[in-house]
Amino acid sequence: MTTYNAPVEDMLFLFNHLKDNKNYNEIEKFKEISPDLVKDILDQAAKINQEIVHPLAKIGDESPCIYENGIVRSPPGYKEAYTKFINDGWTSLSCDPKYGGQGMPKTVSTFFEEMLSSASLSFKLYSELSIGAYNCILHHADEKIKNLFLPKIVEGKWSGTMCLTESQCGTDLGLIKTKAVNQNDGSFLLTGQKIFITSGDHDLTENIIHLVLAKIPGGPSGTKGISLFLVPKFNVNDNGSIGPRNGVNTLSIETKMGIKGSPTCVLNFDNAKGYLIGQENKGLSSMFTMMNLERIIVGIQGLGIAETAYQNSLSYAKERKQGKSNNNKDNKTDEIIKHADIRRSLLGMKSIIEGQRSLAFWLSQQIDVSLNHKEDKIRKNAEELVSLMTPVIKSFFTDMGSEITNEAIQIFGGYGYTKDQGIEQLYRDNRITPIYEGTNSVQAIDLVFRKVLDNNSLSKFISIIKEEVKTNQASNGLEKFSKLLISNLKLLEDFSNLLEQMNKSNKDDVSSACNDFLKVLGYISLAYSWFKISKISYKKLDENKNFYEEKINTAKFYFDKILPRAEMHFNSAKTGSEVIMNAKFN
Amino acid sequence: MTTYNAPVEDMLFLFNHLKDNKNYNEIEKFKEISPDLVKDILDQAAKINQEIVHPLAKIGDESPCIYENGIVRSPPGYKEAYTKFINDGWTSLSCDPKYGGQGMPKTVSTFFEEMLSSASLSFKLYSELSIGAYNCILHHADEKIKNLFLPKIVEGKWSGTMCLTESQCGTDLGLIKTKAVNQNDGSFLLTGQKIFITSGDHDLTENIIHLVLAKIPGGPSGTKGISLFLVPKFNVNDNGSIGPRNGVNTLSIETKMGIKGSPTCVLNFDNAKGYLIGQENKGLSSMFTMMNLERIIVGIQGLGIAETAYQNSLSYAKERKQGKSNNNKDNKTDEIIKHADIRRSLLGMKSIIEGQRSLAFWLSQQIDVSLNHKEDKIRKNAEELVSLMTPVIKSFFTDMGSEITNEAIQIFGGYGYTKDQGIEQLYRDNRITPIYEGTNSVQAIDLVFRKVLDNNSLSKFISIIKEEVKTNQASNGLEKFSKLLISNLKLLEDFSNLLEQMNKSNKDDVSSACNDFLKVLGYISLAYSWFKISKISYKKLDENKNFYEEKINTAKFYFDKILPRAEMHFNSAKTGSEVIMNAKFN
Repeated sequence: MTTYNAPVEDMLFLFNHLKDNKNYNEIEKFKEISPDLVKDILDQAAKINQEIVHPLAKIGDESPCIYENGIVRSPPGYKEAYTKFINDGWTSLSCDPKYGGQGMPKTVSTFFEEMLSSASLSFKLYSELSIGAYNCILHHADEKIKNLFLPKIVEGKWSGTMCLTESQCGTDLGLIKTKAVNQNDGSFLLTGQKIFITSGDHDLTENIIHLVLAKIPGGPSGTKGISLFLVPKFNVNDNGSIGPRNGVNTLSIETKMGIKGSPTCVLNFDNAKGYLIGQENKGLSSMFTMMNLERIIVGIQGLGIAETAYQNSLSYAKERKQGKSNNNKDNKTDEIIKHADIRRSLLGMKSIIEGQRSLAFWLSQQIDVSLNHKEDKIRKNAEELVSLMTPVIKSFFTDMGSEITNEAIQIFGGYGYTKDQGIEQLYRDNRITPIYEGTNSVQAIDLVFRKVLDNNSLSKFISIIKEEVKTNQASNGLEKFSKLLISNLKLLEDFSNLLEQMNKSNKDDVSSACNDFLKVLGYISLAYSWFKISKISYKKLDENKNFYEEKINTAKFYFDKILPRAEMHFNSAKTGSEVIMNAKFN
Repeated sequence: MTTYNAPVEDMLFLFNHLKDNKNYNEIEKFKEISPDLVKDILDQAAKINQEIVHPLAKIGDESPCIYENGIVRSPPGYKEAYTKFINDGWTSLSCDPKYGGQGMPKTVSTFFEEMLSSASLSFKLYSELSIGAYNCILHHADEKIKNLFLPKIVEGKWSGTMCLTESQCGTDLGLIKTKAVNQNDGSFLLTGQKIFITSGDHDLTENIIHLVLAKIPGGPSGTKGISLFLVPKFNVNDNGSIGPRNGVNTLSIETKMGIKGSPTCVLNFDNAKGYLIGQENKGLSSMFTMMNLERIIVGIQGLGIAETAYQNSLSYAKERKQGKSNNNKDNKTDEIIKHADIRRSLLGMKSIIEGQRSLAFWLSQQIDVSLNHKEDKIRKNAEELVSLMTPVIKSFFTDMGSEITNEAIQIFGGYGYTKDQGIEQLYRDNRITPIYEGTNSVQAIDLVFRKVLDNNSLSKFISIIKEEVKTNQASNGLEKFSKLLISNLKLLEDFSNLLEQMNKSNKDDVSSACNDFLKVLGYISLAYSWFKISKISYKKLDENKNFYEEKINTAKFYFDKILPRAEMHFNSAKTGSEVIMNAKFN
């Protein structure tokens, strides 16, 4: 089985030294979130994730969810763990105190999301969509619905789902067929079938609150005629008590490559009672409140699983003896961590993971600003940056999750391919993350067409990095990083200028370059993160030499070995799409 | 379930137009292997692989091998299929007619290896190691052993294994503990435990012939004291009949990520009777006869699985409708193959697969020359090129297999993650190939330290490519490819010169660059293959415009979009290893 130790020290390093967003630091209610409080929370979070949640990962893989007689049963031990999980208040961490939440900022809750992903993605998914449902209801539902549903969701006694996909439409939601017919009492009756519904049914919570996209007959066709509904598994009485079963049934659960402890359901809605959330035909934009935050969390899943893969690879490399390294002196067999190539592989993982954690922390501050700052303009500005980086975090982190879990298998060799050590499970569990909540290619298209070509949020982001470099490039140690960062920013600007040109002449040139562009932005964002980590590390070197030297060394590795990938992606993309569109695929 | 159609047309294209090795064409006994004969063989091979073998892939995954009461049972249908397989003579394809083989060259049998890998890797592995055992016995055993064992192995009634790994040693065979004690009759008694033994036990054949590495007490320590033994599951009487059970027992089989239809066994040798193959203490070099050819076949496995992944992705992309492409005219939903980004992904797979098939065909000719040419010097020369390219084929093809099967999952989206379509199985089945027969990093180290630094086979290979470019660079259409190939050859030379320098100053610089160097050589070798394919395609354009235009287009894609990766690997490697060795991994 894998082991997991939450990287609390690294998280506290970020919280204590990289909370550098001026606007974030102006948010009144977060001023009382002290380093000590955060340390307490992270220590508690580490404890439950290491001791209670992590063992569930293997259990869920070996004893997957069962569907029998219309009922879904979670794997052994999940219910007990979930009960402790909600009793300890973990579902309420970032929720509004008005509904029973603890009101923690994203800068804190994102660390928790990472830990939970590292510990067991399957277990995490039972509560994860609840946060999505919470956000969606919070922002778009009326007071009555909020008061009726939110406290139970925050408490974790009820969970949530997102019901978008149907068999004929995943990416293309304009093709939705589920119908919602208006009733005299203002409610709707929904009929249709939804597939790939994560946590669509299970035995961990008293009720399940489905957020369902459907079409009201007579509305506009395509995506403009989609509305959003709240459909509970059990109807809820006005006093909040649970009423009779609603017309939602589980037809089957999927047999999947991974996350076997999480039920992926086919749900049948047969005149199920639902409540309109937000305006008629504006469902997609309401759903996107949920989707966007969810997409960031999916990116964090990739980061979390990668962390577990790295930790276990590192331990194995320190123990496993095989061959003699170049520096072998005693003619005895060396631990494989002494081999240069194994070290290269481990540093590749480490430099990507720690860079990502830092980037996610930067983004968390922006999210907190976008949701909480008192000034409209500042909120809007932060929102734009969040919007720009959402597809990057989602796609880049999850793709890197595939790369890192794949590398981890390789470090374990034959023992990585057999099931005992649990390493191959990490690849399988992670492999859903580049797919769900919008495939990574769809993210890349969203990034380029909606966020880079259509507005100037990219140039805002570039300005932030340039400012950072400008202020610090003369600092001791940062000269080389500054130079590399500047030349890569130039590349990023060239690439986005090229996209502008391409967009005028041939949209296929742009479409076929989106994935490469997202990767370039991803790699450069991590370089920006490593630049800032290094800045602090050089300053604080004497305080904790061991810790900060390793940070600086890892930054050097990143700039030397990983960052060159950015240029390759640009070189590959700039040759356009003529050949791509000419292919006949006979 | 996946479907599979053997790419016979592409294989015949290679056989008919790229059999361009002068030395190969001089081999007398292969002159009678006519295109018609090859077409017949490939058609028959396609038939059994498509109809009989391919359905076994999913069956093996869903009903893995069972170990019960010391006995291993293969999945349902495997025995019947194997009986037909050997009755049709497929195990004897490339074997010596002296022992009942059909004497086909590698240029033909490698196509069969690919088809079988595409159809079902698990099923393939039952007979694959037999070919390894066949080669090992053929080249190193005495006449008596050859006459006793080879005919049955060629016929497929007996199968073979390679028993190298023990729990404490995979890569580092110097650590082997299995002992072989000499008996008065010249035989040995072997005692020890071997793990990860593919097809170590099963119910498809009457007998299993283990080739086992062990140490004779009193011999030199480390790899210099390893001897090779033939240890049958059932003892064999002098007349060839099967005698009593030998002291080999199966202790367990592994539960694995993939190739679940193939039993991976822990074998216990308890005073098992064995026969020395080759000289005492020279076992490792005898085993390498088997290993080297086996490594090439493992590369072909990666290619074969990638082909199945590509074919199914392509069919799905032609059927699945989602969204509107940039060129949408009728405002109806498009098949996803119309989206530029999906096309890019498919062409990436296609250009790598077809390039690899062509490179493998080039190498097959070299192998045939190395084994069969009448002139010593020419054989040696070919052998050197085979030796150079063996680790490249093994590692590069299997790594690309991981990349391509991963891409295939992505094209299928959610349907790629669920089990029904069989797509995720391709990733899982392929994932063993970068590990077994020497991990890909070990291949890279072998390539650089033994084949690039220690002799001049790389410069021979580069000369061949340069000669090809020189002769054809002025040809219509090849100008751009020539230019790119020349600049990349320069890069390859710079890289190998750098390795020479690094090797003098810091071996860790070399060790940490091996993987990147292997990739560079891989990508440039494929560019060489595409150059030759294009040369033929331009010449023959009018004969079959559809076929040859697509070849040229795919070549363009390769040069535009894939080849830029070579430079990135060089850029990453050339920064050396200081940072890598400085890491503390606290």
